[in-house]
Order: sequence, then structure tokens, then C-alpha cells
Amino acid sequence: MGIVDETIASIEPLDESARQAARARLDSLTKPRGSLGYLEEIVERYAAIRHDGRATRGSAAIAVFVADHGIADEGVSAYPKAVTVEMLRNFARGGAAICVLARHFGLELVVVDVGVETDTRAENLPGVIYRRVAPGTVSFIRGRAMDEAQVVSALETGIEIARMLGARGAALIGIGEMGIGNSTSAAALLSALSRIPAARAAGFGSGLDQAGLKRKIAAIERGLALHRASLGEGVSILAALGGFEIAAMAGACLGAAALRIPIVIDGFIATAAAAIAEKIRPGLSRHLFFGHRSAEAGHGPALEWMRARPILDLEMRLGEGTGAAIAIATIQAALDLFHEMATFAEAKVSAKL
Amino acid sequence: MGIVDETIASIEPLDESARQAARARLDSLTKPRGSLGYLEEIVERYAAIRHDGRATRGSAAIAVFVADHGIADEGVSAYPKAVTVEMLRNFARGGAAICVLARHFGLELVVVDVGVETDTRAENLPGVIYRRVAPGTVSFIRGRAMDEAQVVSALETGIEIARMLGARGAALIGIGEMGIGNSTSAAALLSALSRIPAARAAGFGSGLDQAGLKRKIAAIERGLALHRASLGEGVSILAALGGFEIAAMAGACLGAAALRIPIVIDGFIATAAAAIAEKIRPGLSRHLFFGHRSAEAGHGPALEWMRARPILDLEMRLGEGTGAAIAIATIQAALDLFHEMATFAEAKVSAKL
Repeated sequence: MGIVDETIASIEPLDESARQAARARLDSLTKPRGSLGYLEEIVERYAAIRHDGRATRGSAAIAVFVADHGIADEGVSAYPKAVTVEMLRNFARGGAAICVLARHFGLELVVVDVGVETDTRAENLPGVIYRRVAPGTVSFIRGRAMDEAQVVSALETGIEIARMLGARGAALIGIGEMGIGNSTSAAALLSALSRIPAARAAGFGSGLDQAGLKRKIAAIERGLALHRASLGEGVSILAALGGFEIAAMAGACLGAAALRIPIVIDGFIATAAAAIAEKIRPGLSRHLFFGHRSAEAGHGPALEWMRARPILDLEMRLGEGTGAAIAIATIQAALDLFHEMATFAEAKVSAKL
Repeated sequence: MGIVDETIASIEPLDESARQAARARLDSLTKPRGSLGYLEEIVERYAAIRHDGRATRGSAAIAVFVADHGIADEGVSAYPKAVTVEMLRNFARGGAAICVLARHFGLELVVVDVGVETDTRAENLPGVIYRRVAPGTVSFIRGRAMDEAQVVSALETGIEIARMLGARGAALIGIGEMGIGNSTSAAALLSALSRIPAARAAGFGSGLDQAGLKRKIAAIERGLALHRASLGEGVSILAALGGFEIAAMAGACLGAAALRIPIVIDGFIATAAAAIAEKIRPGLSRHLFFGHRSAEAGHGPALEWMRARPILDLEMRLGEGTGAAIAIATIQAALDLFHEMATFAEAKVSAKL
């Protein structure tokens, strides 16, 4: 049995008794019952995912997976493909948005090259982990984006990163990505999984114009038609429509769930990875928090289809894990409230009339 | 000229050139234009409020104003009036929700007794500032909640606190409150100002049942009818319907605006204070951020009426400044992004196609 199957087999259901223990403490704290709103549900679910009614805190990390996409050569992106490697260097130098947020909120940041076109291994980029499946996927309107061995390799990378971060003490892992063209791949995946039409799943990405959006929708429709026979299960859907970084994020979801670590999904692209992980292991999305609702047009429908409630709604659409990072700060605040607030008994505060 | 009039007279319009300078830098950062969504608007407005195109960071503080309400004796609250002083002690001991969040996010916390029924001055509660206008307001269905001298005194306290925090380096001030009965006062004030009917402005507060909500709506309607002749301008509305802590929060809004310090409004009660401050000094609300949309029923309509966009929507309804505290962390993250992200030129990242 391979690492992926082993990981899937070791994912347990949430612990409902841990959830109830957390709920009981929440109700003893000096506040009107339920008045922390969604923060209370977050704490309960954290306890249930971690099988820990005490909802013990830990550190938090962000993993950013970076890869190139053959589909980017079909005029579906507002930025040139070279931006993927340029941003990889920007991550290494600490100048990208996610670097700032990781510093601001005290999150460990790991950046993983799972298949950037330009090989930067000789550049000694600090902090970049190399697990290059290939120098970019194949354009999914010309053939399969990748083969199934490549899918498995990318899934395994995600599992490996989740295990590494877990071993370093992470109790929350946010996932994000960078890869010019990847909102096209993500929209195609979500459309294949959910039957949301391409025209609703696709959006302006990093800033397409109307003509670009038309090309993007046409490419997705062509890809879905070309690969119709392969859209039955998770691995073959990924092989058809791609994204090394999307497959790696799906692997990170599976790997973290197996370790009872909640994953915080970033935006639209990471949601496609979550949807694939759910397809591979039904019920997996109960182990996830959705960090925010992105401004990307397809994200709202995708969240609705997944019955996911995002923590934030700030119209962000930057990726890199930026929405997940701010959401993690909110989750950690909720955990601090759970641990540090006084109870009615401790504070001698009168109960409800 | 008194302190209040002097403060009002010194409030300047926002600085549009500072806003444009901030916008220009935002557009130079390594991200698709506008992709930080509402965070970009927050940075622009921060720059404009502070008359500082560089959007220089500073520390942040939360001021919690605490007072009792005569209306609490009319069966409009789920908790006994004694909870106000019990929570004042909980603030002083660090066990309340806002204490946890202030520690978590590194915010200075000041707690101000502007009129709690029980006088705790002999108890040496650490960190509590005493500016007691009176031991609670009069029930507004029996007479005016306070007289105009008391309104002025509470407004001056808010201005004083804003000045104190500004002198200590605060560049953002969140305001919150505690006071059993104050959601009744806030709903009455908002109804008087906006013509939102009492039945829409009132909600379950800290956890009323249906019969309690009926009593609350009836009390608000009775109060509005009794004081109809006094509902023309800010100070007389406050005198009629009360809230020492609401008046103090309105004063803090005015005082901070005069010092070019953005105020972060908490939930429903703080929004009533913001609405009064806007009535006293039209245009003032441009100096405010609205931290979150509360689950309290009247908050949505009130925010809509004020054309205010809340930063968070977590169904919180705890007060104390808890929503403002999490929103401040988001604003500070936005400022860090503004200052620390690399520009396209610095990072040698290609521009849009």
C-alpha cells in the first residue's frame, strides 16, 4: 500500500465527545451563551478534528505550493508565465504578501517548488523546498496535464509537508499557492466535480479582460470535453486538468487530516484542492476550515456547493495563502478566548435570569 | 467654548492627497492590482484619516466604557443589573473576553467606569479609570435618562480618553462597552436617529426570550413617544435615551477624529454611539472603521442606514470591543502588507501583459 492509500486509510471521523467537551467549557465562560458566534463553532470543530476536548493550542504554519501550468500558454492569464518563478524568488526574499503576513502573525512559512518551469535549484533560494514533479504541466487542451504517477508524486509531497509541519508542532496548517494559469485549472477541476458550468466557475483571475475571460471559459469547456472519459475519480481528474500545486495541496489536506491537524483553505485555487481531496476521501472537508471568500467569481458558487462557511469575506483574490493567514489569526484568537477567559464561577458573575 | 465644541471645531476633512499617495504605493506592490480587496480600501482610508500618505503604523488600543442603565429595571435584559459591576471586576482581573483579545493582539486596554451603580473606587481595581457621571441613568420610560450637563460630562470623558491614548502613541482606537440594559438604550437611540422602527432596531441582546423582547420593544416605543419633543439633536437625544458609556464612546469618536486617529467601532451599541457622533458632527463617520457585523438583529439595518461596511462578519454579539479587537488585527495586517511587501521594481517581477 502506497503512502497515499495509507494516509487515506488512517483518517478517522471527528471526535464528537471532544466537541461536546469544548462546548461545555464554552458555555461556562463569562459571556452570554453563543455570543462569540462563529468563533465558538470554530473552537468546537478544532477540538473535534484534533480529538482533544481541551482544544490545546499549538503553533501554526503556512505551506505555499508553486508550479507552472501548460494552460498558461493559451492566453488565459493576465500575467506572463515568468511571473511564477519571479514570485518564487520574491517568496524566498520575504517580499511577497504571504511573507509579510507570516511574520506579522508569527506563522512558520514553507515554500515548495512542485514544478516551476525554470529550475532555480542552483540559485540557493533560502527556505524553498524542491519537490519538482516536472517543469510545468501539459496544456490540458492538448492532452492530459500530467500522468497518474505525477499526480501520486504531487499528492505524496503534500502529505510529506503536512507530516513535516506536524512534527514541528503545527496544530493548524494553512495552504496557499502560486502558479500563473492556475485559476483556469482550478475552475476546470471545480466544474468537473460540481457540474458548475465553466462560465460560472471561471473568473478574471489575476486581472483578465473580457476577451481573456472568454478564452479562459472556452479553454475550460474544451478541456472538459476532451477529458470527459477521465472525469470519474479524483486522481484521473487531477491528471486530466492538472495543477502540481493543486494536487500537492490536496495531499496536504489528506496528510493533515490523518494527523488530526485542521487545514485552513485559502481561496479559489485551494478550494479546488479541497474539493479534490473530498472526492478522494469523502467526508474529508469536515477536517478543513475555509479561510475566506475570495472575490474570484467562481469561489462563491464553489463554497456553496461544498456547504463551506468562510471565516472572512474581504474581497481578497491574491492567493499565496494570504486569506488563510488572516483566518488563522482569527482561529488562534478564538482558541485563546477558550483557554483564557474566566468562567462564571471563577469570576463570581451572576448567571442569566 | 467648551471642550466638546472645541473638539468638534478642530475636526478636519479627510486628506484626499494622502489617500492617493497610498493608492499609488498599493498599485506598485507585487500583487495583481486591487487583489487585497477591502484591505486596500482600509489602508487608503487610514492614510486619509491620518493625513499621512505613508500610512505610518503606530500602536493600537481598546477603550471599554462601562455604565449602568435605569431601563435595565424594566425587565428588558436577560441578565441582572449586578452583572455590570461583576464584569467591571472581571475586566480588572483580566478574565473577560476583551482582556484575552487585547493580550493576544498586543493592544493597550483601558477600562473606564462612567457610571456603574456600585461604586468600586475603594476596591483598588487595577487599570480602571473612574469618571463616574452618576450611579447609573434614570429609566428612560420614567423621565430623561440624564441631564444635558451629564451628557457633556460623558462626552468630555470620551474625548479625554482619546487624547490620553493618542498621547501614548495609539494610531488606532477600538471602542467597546459593558452595561446591562444598554442594547435597549442603543436601539432607542438608533430608532430615534434613523426612523428604523423599534421592532427592527431591537434584538435579543444578551439572550432575552420572546416575552422579554416584546417588553423591550414596548419600552423603546414608550421612550420614543415620551421624549418625542427632545429627539431633534444629538445631545438632547442622548439626554433622553441615555447611556453614559454610549455618550462617552461618541465623545471618543469626536476626540479621536480631531486627533486624526481612526476609531474602530465594535458592535451594535458602539454603532449607536457612532450614529450619535455623526449627528453631532456630520461627516464624522468617514473617520471610523466598523469592526464587524453583530448578530444583534438591529445591527444590519443600522449599518445599512449608515452605509457602513463592516470588516468582519462572525455573528459575534458579545460587546466589550471584542469585534473591534479582531478587526484591528486585520487593519494592522493590512498596514504591514502596505509597508513590507516588495514592489514590482524591487522584486523584478514582470508587469501585467
